[in-house]
Amino acid sequence: MKRKSILAALVLVPLTVVAGRVASPNGDVVLNFSLDDKGRPTYDMSYKGRPVVLPSHLGLELAKDKHASRGLDERSLMDGFTLVDEQTSTTDETWRPVWGETATIRNHYVEYAAKLAQHWTQPRVTAGEGQRGMFEERHQREIIIRFRVYDDGIGFRYEFPQQKELNYFLIQDERSEFRMTGDHTAWWLPGDYDTQEQETQESRLSEIRGRMDKAVNWGNSSVAVFSPTGVQTALQMKSQDGLYINIHEAACADYATMHLELVDDQTKALTTQLKGGSNAYTPNPKPSAYPLPQPFTFVSHLTPDATGLKGAMQTPCQTPWRTVMVSDDARQMLASNLILNLNEPCALDDTSWIHPTKYCGVWWEMIVGKSNWHYTDDFPSIKLDQIDWTKVKPHGRHAANNEKVKRYIDFAAKNGLDEVLVEGWNVGWEDWANMWKRDVFDFQTPYPDFDIKMLNDYAHSKGVKLLMHHETSSSTQNYERHLEQAFQLMNKYGYDAVKTGYVGDIIPRGDHHYSQSMNNHYLYVVKEAARHHIMVNAHEATRPTGLCRTYPNLVGNESARGTEYEAFGGSRPDHTCILPFTRLQGGPMDYTPGIFVTRLKEWSNNDSWARITIAGSLALYLTMYSPLQMAADLPEHYEKFDDAFQFIRDVACDWDESIYLEAEPADYITVARKAKGTDNWFVGGKCDENGHEALVKLDFLDKGRKYLCTIYADAKDAHYETNPQAYTITKKVVKAGQTLKIKEAPGGGFAISLMPEK
Amino acid sequence: MKRKSILAALVLVPLTVVAGRVASPNGDVVLNFSLDDKGRPTYDMSYKGRPVVLPSHLGLELAKDKHASRGLDERSLMDGFTLVDEQTSTTDETWRPVWGETATIRNHYVEYAAKLAQHWTQPRVTAGEGQRGMFEERHQREIIIRFRVYDDGIGFRYEFPQQKELNYFLIQDERSEFRMTGDHTAWWLPGDYDTQEQETQESRLSEIRGRMDKAVNWGNSSVAVFSPTGVQTALQMKSQDGLYINIHEAACADYATMHLELVDDQTKALTTQLKGGSNAYTPNPKPSAYPLPQPFTFVSHLTPDATGLKGAMQTPCQTPWRTVMVSDDARQMLASNLILNLNEPCALDDTSWIHPTKYCGVWWEMIVGKSNWHYTDDFPSIKLDQIDWTKVKPHGRHAANNEKVKRYIDFAAKNGLDEVLVEGWNVGWEDWANMWKRDVFDFQTPYPDFDIKMLNDYAHSKGVKLLMHHETSSSTQNYERHLEQAFQLMNKYGYDAVKTGYVGDIIPRGDHHYSQSMNNHYLYVVKEAARHHIMVNAHEATRPTGLCRTYPNLVGNESARGTEYEAFGGSRPDHTCILPFTRLQGGPMDYTPGIFVTRLKEWSNNDSWARITIAGSLALYLTMYSPLQMAADLPEHYEKFDDAFQFIRDVACDWDESIYLEAEPADYITVARKAKGTDNWFVGGKCDENGHEALVKLDFLDKGRKYLCTIYADAKDAHYETNPQAYTITKKVVKAGQTLKIKEAPGGGFAISLMPEK
Repeated sequence: MKRKSILAALVLVPLTVVAGRVASPNGDVVLNFSLDDKGRPTYDMSYKGRPVVLPSHLGLELAKDKHASRGLDERSLMDGFTLVDEQTSTTDETWRPVWGETATIRNHYVEYAAKLAQHWTQPRVTAGEGQRGMFEERHQREIIIRFRVYDDGIGFRYEFPQQKELNYFLIQDERSEFRMTGDHTAWWLPGDYDTQEQETQESRLSEIRGRMDKAVNWGNSSVAVFSPTGVQTALQMKSQDGLYINIHEAACADYATMHLELVDDQTKALTTQLKGGSNAYTPNPKPSAYPLPQPFTFVSHLTPDATGLKGAMQTPCQTPWRTVMVSDDARQMLASNLILNLNEPCALDDTSWIHPTKYCGVWWEMIVGKSNWHYTDDFPSIKLDQIDWTKVKPHGRHAANNEKVKRYIDFAAKNGLDEVLVEGWNVGWEDWANMWKRDVFDFQTPYPDFDIKMLNDYAHSKGVKLLMHHETSSSTQNYERHLEQAFQLMNKYGYDAVKTGYVGDIIPRGDHHYSQSMNNHYLYVVKEAARHHIMVNAHEATRPTGLCRTYPNLVGNESARGTEYEAFGGSRPDHTCILPFTRLQGGPMDYTPGIFVTRLKEWSNNDSWARITIAGSLALYLTMYSPLQMAADLPEHYEKFDDAFQFIRDVACDWDESIYLEAEPADYITVARKAKGTDNWFVGGKCDENGHEALVKLDFLDKGRKYLCTIYADAKDAHYETNPQAYTITKKVVKAGQTLKIKEAPGGGFAISLMPEK
Repeated sequence: MKRKSILAALVLVPLTVVAGRVASPNGDVVLNFSLDDKGRPTYDMSYKGRPVVLPSHLGLELAKDKHASRGLDERSLMDGFTLVDEQTSTTDETWRPVWGETATIRNHYVEYAAKLAQHWTQPRVTAGEGQRGMFEERHQREIIIRFRVYDDGIGFRYEFPQQKELNYFLIQDERSEFRMTGDHTAWWLPGDYDTQEQETQESRLSEIRGRMDKAVNWGNSSVAVFSPTGVQTALQMKSQDGLYINIHEAACADYATMHLELVDDQTKALTTQLKGGSNAYTPNPKPSAYPLPQPFTFVSHLTPDATGLKGAMQTPCQTPWRTVMVSDDARQMLASNLILNLNEPCALDDTSWIHPTKYCGVWWEMIVGKSNWHYTDDFPSIKLDQIDWTKVKPHGRHAANNEKVKRYIDFAAKNGLDEVLVEGWNVGWEDWANMWKRDVFDFQTPYPDFDIKMLNDYAHSKGVKLLMHHETSSSTQNYERHLEQAFQLMNKYGYDAVKTGYVGDIIPRGDHHYSQSMNNHYLYVVKEAARHHIMVNAHEATRPTGLCRTYPNLVGNESARGTEYEAFGGSRPDHTCILPFTRLQGGPMDYTPGIFVTRLKEWSNNDSWARITIAGSLALYLTMYSPLQMAADLPEHYEKFDDAFQFIRDVACDWDESIYLEAEPADYITVARKAKGTDNWFVGGKCDENGHEALVKLDFLDKGRKYLCTIYADAKDAHYETNPQAYTITKKVVKAGQTLKIKEAPGGGFAISLMPEK
């Protein structure tokens, strides 16, 4: 007997275009969602009636895998959707961060969730006694695209409920599109799987392709760029009609970090992955099956694993939030809490052990090349288990020695700094990087001249803590093998914070710094650290996406070009006027500011110099918000400029209130902040190479109260290149309503402390 | 001023061919070593004047890497060598294994070490005040090729001393050649990066290519074959003139497992790696730069990592030993200790806690499909941290439940078995394999019906231990994250042995079961286990290479097609007459013998059946040496054949003496063994599908002493297919000098116990 399919005719074709329209609480931001004629999810977004994102598709291409037959899904989540359900709701709540720029944060948004279904039929062959036939079996699976619409932007994410037809899938790539309205100015970094330490480029979107090659510092051994139009987030843009637009992501956990690939008029196909083993973009090795979007569209591009795949997912799960922030006022880009708000609440029961930290450290002189992390030149290479360190001949340039560390402890104690970072304390630095060496550090064994017990005891006796350093050399397997013991050692000696590092290529080989597995690793370390009441400051880890709300022991990240580059050839003076718009959107940066002696040649053989004035350096403690702030220069340099250093002694790094007074990307930033639990205000202003005249209206001060105002400003003839150490310190009494007019030198800035009179 | 190079003319060309000739202690094996006219290391080997390995090249191709400029070497170690030094010495020592086939092992060899140097010049550009010029800089680096020549074969390895010019390198592939003398018969498995559980093929070398496709069980999801002529080691061969030749490796630690690629008359180029993401051999993607050897030459082919590279090395280091065993007597292939001897001595100070173990377990009924590892059908997938197991609805087929485990404990206690394995005790089995799921098990949380404390207490009260099970699902990162806690849990409840499993694809994705990193992982687990006094029995791990000498807590491995396949369609009757020649060369196998009810349909829905008689099953406890032996069938099946089970109760699994009486690969094996510390002898014989008549000369018994002899033999009409349960048990008194003639049925065997009369 033969049976014909009864269901074959019932294929559901989504002929109708459905649409949801949602406005933000104050109506400034409007989001439209619809399905196009192929059932592709589509959205657009406007701000005060002006388009921000033109109609753009959403979806994910899934990968084929040999385990597909066992239940791993490989049908893409790109099109053929019908709308099953829509839900709209409003949330208005206020929460208190453990640390931050403000004491409380309001989370006020309108949410729109579209439940979408794909239906398909599939032949099923049956064979049994007396009957053979082919049937069309009907399948359905559902996803949710959830939008949160704020007055200053949107977030959206894909959610994958647990269901019979969707349990596991591999991501070939996420295809979230962001179609811009024109040839915006953008502040961008080359999209790269392994480094985010390049200089920011400022160009029109149409100029990205032409500038990519020189934008990449090919000398950086970690370079792994994937496309001539690939850029990183947070991407700050400014439209020709004056809108500030920022694309980034929030709550990126156990998912690959997103880049953006710009479709321009030369794009033939989207890049799907970097050629294996290469570190340079290649002609598209595996083109997407879906039509190319219009020029000026950014398309998400996730960081792959060693096999080129972008993610292994198990439902229930979701992607990170994709964020588009928008304003016609640049200050709002800095004041926005959209990314923190899109993260989950604090996951730690007890956060009493987490505290803002000002620190100095045995670090800068090694970066500059005056002393070393390593201890001996005796060996061409090191095997940790084969060396008796007590018998090794020291080369005499090892910085992390008892005498020097005590000197730093004394300095910290005298100046009210909380902790002292010591890098190079543990064995293994002789050959630590870029040799594919797995067992590179044990995070346990100090060099013979670093008495870990004595130094911690000494520090504690002076009310100071040591700050631990774990350079992993990106050998993550090795770090995870030692992690528990390393944290136990910290607990034993009284360390409560660790700076981690991920220099060099990832081991296991083929993986990338920003892949799903590495993002999982970074968060694994943060969670394990929390169990031990340890704060984490991760360098070279993936750029943050606000996870510090959920895990506030993640007190810092590097994840951008930090002060160290001032010793590697320097960074442009506008660098620090860009970072708050880009890198800092996701969380604080351990920028390690405070270089007072900017000409390194004055005390070392290093020809490099920091492109900043002393007053500009002081400003960074305010304009570059972080609960963890370093005074990075040498104690003896601070002692030479002790009157200026007074500001670093005074400044807080946790705040009840923050008011951005002036801002323009790559030009200048001026911010006033009220120190947590006090009535003291601090104001900082930083500018680019052109200088700036800041107007500081003291509206924020308590009316009727007098404040002792100390102004650390660039001297009249100060200049980041020719006269960086020229500053003035002016003290006066001020009150609310007054306006201070302060001139910032090229590459300069200013800092003000305002203490209420008793 | 311009200077011309003075050194340019001094390039050393190795024009002279040097040669070392070394004979084994009794002169049977002779090794020749030389450098050919291109400075390529070359060796050949003979046995009793007959060639075994014709002149064959040795060397390693190194990989290019982006870090080359930083000191990572990329000049291949293939040719251009000169002989710097030769050393010859003789060693004769005897050592005591912690467990084994004999109480002592003699290690008697002649060693030959050739120190070889490569010289090269390299242009160096100098630029200074008043002088510019190009100089030829002279470089030299050295390696050692070390041979150990035994009376029954050779081992050789490459050693890389620490030196200025050779510190780190990446291996593109090792190119050790083994040129055979003709078209030998070989017992081979398809070379595969991820599985060694195929049926052995018996063919001429020239037939390998033609048979490869059907030799691969493409249904096995782990298949990753790399070449149509790639085979695994240990590779057993027999030459047309009757020499038994075996190629394998010894002491493979932190190095990729070796395969062999046969050059035949169709070979155009050597395969260098499997195509990324594929699981099938592909046309050579990256041909070697060196000339192809002659047909009938095997060339080493290492298992790659996710990027296709074969190893990351840091000097001082060495490769594993490459072994060629040879004899004109097949019994010597089984009696040889060459591979154990080439391993390092025991690395553990205290081995008192390591003991031979006979065990039963909650296992076979799950393999057969009668019950399950998993507990519930409630969820389409499982996230360990999101399920309250006490509220889950059990499906009722969960085998690892209190009642059943107690039944097994009672059975073990009653029958003198040491331990009871319980698989499926811990949560996560609902969706454990092949979904790229990282966090698949926690190795901590029992299912609600497995009372871990009660069951261990109950077992201990009866003098029995439970045997832990850690299926990792090949998610090695997850296992390493939980390892310490998992071992602490074992210590807490009194487990002293763990069976580990590595089913499915390796996570991190792209890695392979036999890569350098995975071999490091397996040994890492063994070392960590030793710290906790835990014995390890690793399934699906890399095939052993004698590391159990160094780490005797590695009491077993699967690493081949085990008894489980009798429930997956069956294995050929000759399978167990091949394994001792191949898989067992490197160390014991947890073959899990002892199936008495071979027709699974009798008690389950499984149509498969074991191709063995009951007497044959008993023989395996002797012919398949292991210090860990399972009685794999169900207690109720043993209770039905309690008289036959008496042999399993009696038989030892640690020995003072072992004498191979008869052997021919794939035909039959007969062995006599004296139980450690006793005067009891046991004899076992196992044959293929053709049956065999064994002659057991009782020469090994103490003269003048009488022994109570119990013979468990196939009944006259026994047959593995039609009458597998027909056996006879005969008791008689025997003495030295007598000969027993025992008929083994097709697929059958026999077992004998010989106890001295009191």
